[in-house]
Amino acid sequence: MNGQEEVRLSRVERRKQDTRARILIAAESLMRSRSIDGITIRDITEAADVGHGSFYLHFKSKYEVLIPIVQGMAEELDTRLRGLLANLTDPAEIMAVSGRHMGRMIVADELWRWTLLHAAVPVQEMQNAIGRFSQRDFNRGHQTGRLLVNDVAAASSFALGGYVNCLMSAFNEQDAHQRIDDGVEIMLRVFGLSIAEAKRIAHQSLPILE
Amino acid sequence: MNGQEEVRLSRVERRKQDTRARILIAAESLMRSRSIDGITIRDITEAADVGHGSFYLHFKSKYEVLIPIVQGMAEELDTRLRGLLANLTDPAEIMAVSGRHMGRMIVADELWRWTLLHAAVPVQEMQNAIGRFSQRDFNRGHQTGRLLVNDVAAASSFALGGYVNCLMSAFNEQDAHQRIDDGVEIMLRVFGLSIAEAKRIAHQSLPILE
Repeated sequence: MNGQEEVRLSRVERRKQDTRARILIAAESLMRSRSIDGITIRDITEAADVGHGSFYLHFKSKYEVLIPIVQGMAEELDTRLRGLLANLTDPAEIMAVSGRHMGRMIVADELWRWTLLHAAVPVQEMQNAIGRFSQRDFNRGHQTGRLLVNDVAAASSFALGGYVNCLMSAFNEQDAHQRIDDGVEIMLRVFGLSIAEAKRIAHQSLPILE
Repeated sequence: MNGQEEVRLSRVERRKQDTRARILIAAESLMRSRSIDGITIRDITEAADVGHGSFYLHFKSKYEVLIPIVQGMAEELDTRLRGLLANLTDPAEIMAVSGRHMGRMIVADELWRWTLLHAAVPVQEMQNAIGRFSQRDFNRGHQTGRLLVNDVAAASSFALGGYVNCLMSAFNEQDAHQRIDDGVEIMLRVFGLSIAEAKRIAHQSLPILE
């Protein structure tokens, strides 16, 4: 490949990334302004000022365009959580505080709710969006022996599926935070904590996010 | 309503139920003979010898037609399990044996696998197909204090979502039965069993179904 081709390739690539970013920004803005169900792909491409076909170079559906948006929210929350969690040393407490704050963000956000309710295969995308952070915290707790599981793969998929399903059951609850915390309590049991300790850690005073 | 109208109504109703039954039988037969992804609604209505539009009076999609089929399988398994479970008195053991056999049936069946992988909202349909039976066994254990949870709704949705997600993680495992049993072990922790007891009950010799 000579220098000229490299420049041309990277220009194409840059343009493609720019189109993708414009679609994401337009989609999020539209979806926060009116009912997601009523928004068409054409509404999104018109708002983004890109060709209708360009959408399908990047995403297969309205659902797929939401994945990077909610994933970005999870990453942003994780960054903010890092400060809060830096003061904690117990991996069980770290997972509980993460799970409780993540749950509060998810049930409060229309885009997250829609994505979870329309996830055809929640596992993989959600693994990326939610599971990645908890995986890191889990690994630390597992290595030190604070979190006890016999089969890490089974425990991870069980905890993730259980957590997400419990969050979804909180969507229509009057006291969604209570349901989230009860779900986190159960998650701690999955990770081997005793009934009494899981209860205490899941319901103790939750440090506030700055 | 006079007698004649009643007869007419019930004839319409009978015919509707007959159409539905023929669609279900044709769909199951087709889906067991070739790749589900390649089967169209038209393939199903032709095999069932019903009008194309009739399909949509009963089902919205290929996914929806699978729900009563897999639900029927779960019911049939449950009936067979009843005999086996009649000898057991411990609700934790009953749930473990149910969960292990149900999991083995699900991972071995193409229709079940496809349904779970394409479930847009797994919660409700799966609650009907899987959760109903375990709910009954759970209630018994909960009333006697053998199974200990603080929030029944949270524990039920967590256990169901976790169990299903763990089953799905078993689809591509060499030793799917091992993964299922590990998932059942975690489910028993969710229901308040100690680490040691959950392990013992989930992995003890599994009674064979007649």
